[in-house]
Amino acid sequence: MSDVEGPSRPGVAEVAVWQDAHVAAALASRVETRTQARILRLLRDEGPLSRAELADRLRVSRTTVAAEVGRLVELELTEDAGPATSRGGRRSTILDFRTDLRFAGVDIGATSLDVAITDGRLRVLAKAAEEIDVRDGPETVLPAVLRLLRDLLEAQPGPWRLAGAGIGVPGPVDFNRGVPVSPPIMPGWDGYPVRDTMARELGCPVLLDNDVNVMALGEQHSGVARAAQDFLFVKIGTGIGCGIMVGGQMYRGVNGCAGDIGHITVEETGPVCACGEKGCLEAVFGGAALARDALAAAKAGRSPVLSEILERKGALTAADVGAAATRGDPCAVRMVREGGARVGLTLAGLVSFINPGLIVIGGRVANLGHLLLSEIRGVVYRRSLPLATGNMPIVLSELGDDAGVVGAARMVSDALYALE
Amino acid sequence: MSDVEGPSRPGVAEVAVWQDAHVAAALASRVETRTQARILRLLRDEGPLSRAELADRLRVSRTTVAAEVGRLVELELTEDAGPATSRGGRRSTILDFRTDLRFAGVDIGATSLDVAITDGRLRVLAKAAEEIDVRDGPETVLPAVLRLLRDLLEAQPGPWRLAGAGIGVPGPVDFNRGVPVSPPIMPGWDGYPVRDTMARELGCPVLLDNDVNVMALGEQHSGVARAAQDFLFVKIGTGIGCGIMVGGQMYRGVNGCAGDIGHITVEETGPVCACGEKGCLEAVFGGAALARDALAAAKAGRSPVLSEILERKGALTAADVGAAATRGDPCAVRMVREGGARVGLTLAGLVSFINPGLIVIGGRVANLGHLLLSEIRGVVYRRSLPLATGNMPIVLSELGDDAGVVGAARMVSDALYALE
Repeated sequence: MSDVEGPSRPGVAEVAVWQDAHVAAALASRVETRTQARILRLLRDEGPLSRAELADRLRVSRTTVAAEVGRLVELELTEDAGPATSRGGRRSTILDFRTDLRFAGVDIGATSLDVAITDGRLRVLAKAAEEIDVRDGPETVLPAVLRLLRDLLEAQPGPWRLAGAGIGVPGPVDFNRGVPVSPPIMPGWDGYPVRDTMARELGCPVLLDNDVNVMALGEQHSGVARAAQDFLFVKIGTGIGCGIMVGGQMYRGVNGCAGDIGHITVEETGPVCACGEKGCLEAVFGGAALARDALAAAKAGRSPVLSEILERKGALTAADVGAAATRGDPCAVRMVREGGARVGLTLAGLVSFINPGLIVIGGRVANLGHLLLSEIRGVVYRRSLPLATGNMPIVLSELGDDAGVVGAARMVSDALYALE
Repeated sequence: MSDVEGPSRPGVAEVAVWQDAHVAAALASRVETRTQARILRLLRDEGPLSRAELADRLRVSRTTVAAEVGRLVELELTEDAGPATSRGGRRSTILDFRTDLRFAGVDIGATSLDVAITDGRLRVLAKAAEEIDVRDGPETVLPAVLRLLRDLLEAQPGPWRLAGAGIGVPGPVDFNRGVPVSPPIMPGWDGYPVRDTMARELGCPVLLDNDVNVMALGEQHSGVARAAQDFLFVKIGTGIGCGIMVGGQMYRGVNGCAGDIGHITVEETGPVCACGEKGCLEAVFGGAALARDALAAAKAGRSPVLSEILERKGALTAADVGAAATRGDPCAVRMVREGGARVGLTLAGLVSFINPGLIVIGGRVANLGHLLLSEIRGVVYRRSLPLATGNMPIVLSELGDDAGVVGAARMVSDALYALE
């Protein structure tokens, strides 16, 4: 989407050369009208449409659609994709995104990095992942992101142009400035200009948000929360967080740290948390807490299955607790149930408070699956106001590990196709 | 605001005669344009303005203002209030609401009824209160509301026209239908058409919401939350509830029961609540719980001051606990502190979740004042994410008992001066 044509298959290194810091602002303003933005959103969310269908859906004249589509083709965003089935009357042509349009989605976790390249409809064309330690800081992690993205882009079979990139990080973010703010598990990232650095490196608009908000957007785009306007996305990973969707919009709070439910006190005399307080939800349950409890159980001989896994692998993770529970280990089953009940009681309070239409449970620990889900459901349905839970499903994430990368791509496409 | 002119000082009984069920809809649509609505909101929120000032503030031409103001005068909503101070150039006149314009605000509590009559700027001109028992049902309570309103209106010194009435009730409300829904402490009100019944009786548009939302609106209109866009209003009365303001708008949740924090579990083995569960916040603290604990303390001889009050009055209320605490009674002080800590811990969790800009504490139990407030502050500031509480004041309601009636009037005026 640069005004300067690059080679047919430029790598990220070259991208940085033929673009500059002002490109982001220039590109973001290339959609000129609200009608153009609405056309692009329809194509993104519903697939190719004929000009006649666009006119019907947008309730504007076919003349208006023709003019706006003409501009979108000139802007190199869309192209004709063949004739539409005749509805009688004038012949119409199908409009679709240009096939070379690409978005990037990046999901930086505490210990994992997921990146994906999507087409204009945000369908994942290629993805890659590797283990990282976010505590290594932005100077180590961001180059890894660029390397993975470059490898994916260079492996694309045809020409491509990167329209935008979204990035999620596991900590509070000042969304308007595009920087992490006092992130507890990301020392070294505080105030680092992640958004602007990456926009300069990638030569395209970049947006930064926390990982949970981005995952919530992903589930809303193509997961289990499609069409949901008011829902909570609860991520149970190494830590625990919550994305809040209100009236179809992400709610970030006054300081951008809304949804930080991992540090809600659930046991006043509970284990000490990384934040320094006692009995936070994520100190009681969550990936790190489960691994800690599993190690203690294995060493104390309370769980033969966990002892066996520890002996074999030398360490234990939340996934091992899930495996042990699946094998019927009573100690592991109890750990999942008690943790699920804790999460459930916290969510019951939030349901009474915010009265959402849907709760989606995601994150790696959600892989513990239906044992965890049934415990959460049991407590929420019993301990929230009946009026609030009457029509409120509690479900597992449909996108799993893809929620973050799809949501990140969706976030930046929303900004490019802005309605205001 | 009726198309039919009534006598100069009609009572409510006559009002019902010279208006009909369709009046509400007709009146609600009498503001014809967004500019008219914006003019009325400016007059309401800032007082009389000259036509020149209106043109500046609305960024429209003086010709447009002249035309729109002309219509508002024809609609009998506004009138000229004298010449403006000259700014050079064309002479301008001051615009204000007609002096006969009135709104009614009604705050129905569990045991109290407050009503007020306001002018177009929602300044309280007259108010009245009486003790009720909301459990007596709408057939008993609503006639009491009509009687109090009629008495206030008939005592108005000049002619009046009722433009709208807002009503708050202590339970969940289906805002779009204007009916209470499964209200725990209001048996007999479930599904009762409060809004439409009152609109018919009063002959003007009526809106119904729960009391806490209405109080939050009141504080936003002319109390401590003026200009706040994202805040929580926490009512600690007989029960406990919370109004949630998000981006300047009341957030009601998917079923209209958002903010029902009184039934968040705070002590899994705590006292049984009216809702049937154990350890709900309002079963541990709140007016009814305080009165219960005060009685137990007095009878057990743990508090000489409360024993003395009980002997003198035959019963104890939350206010008596406050009085005993003020007199330094250690048992009463401990009750307020422990309750405040419970409320604080619940709010700390909600602060981590929703990251508000301000918390306002109101309701009758808030009269316990600074002992309660300091305990709540201590816990919230210690147990919430520092990023979330850095700039978040926790303050007592400024309007006190007027919050509900002012907010109720504001609610209906917002709907009459609708911006969409």
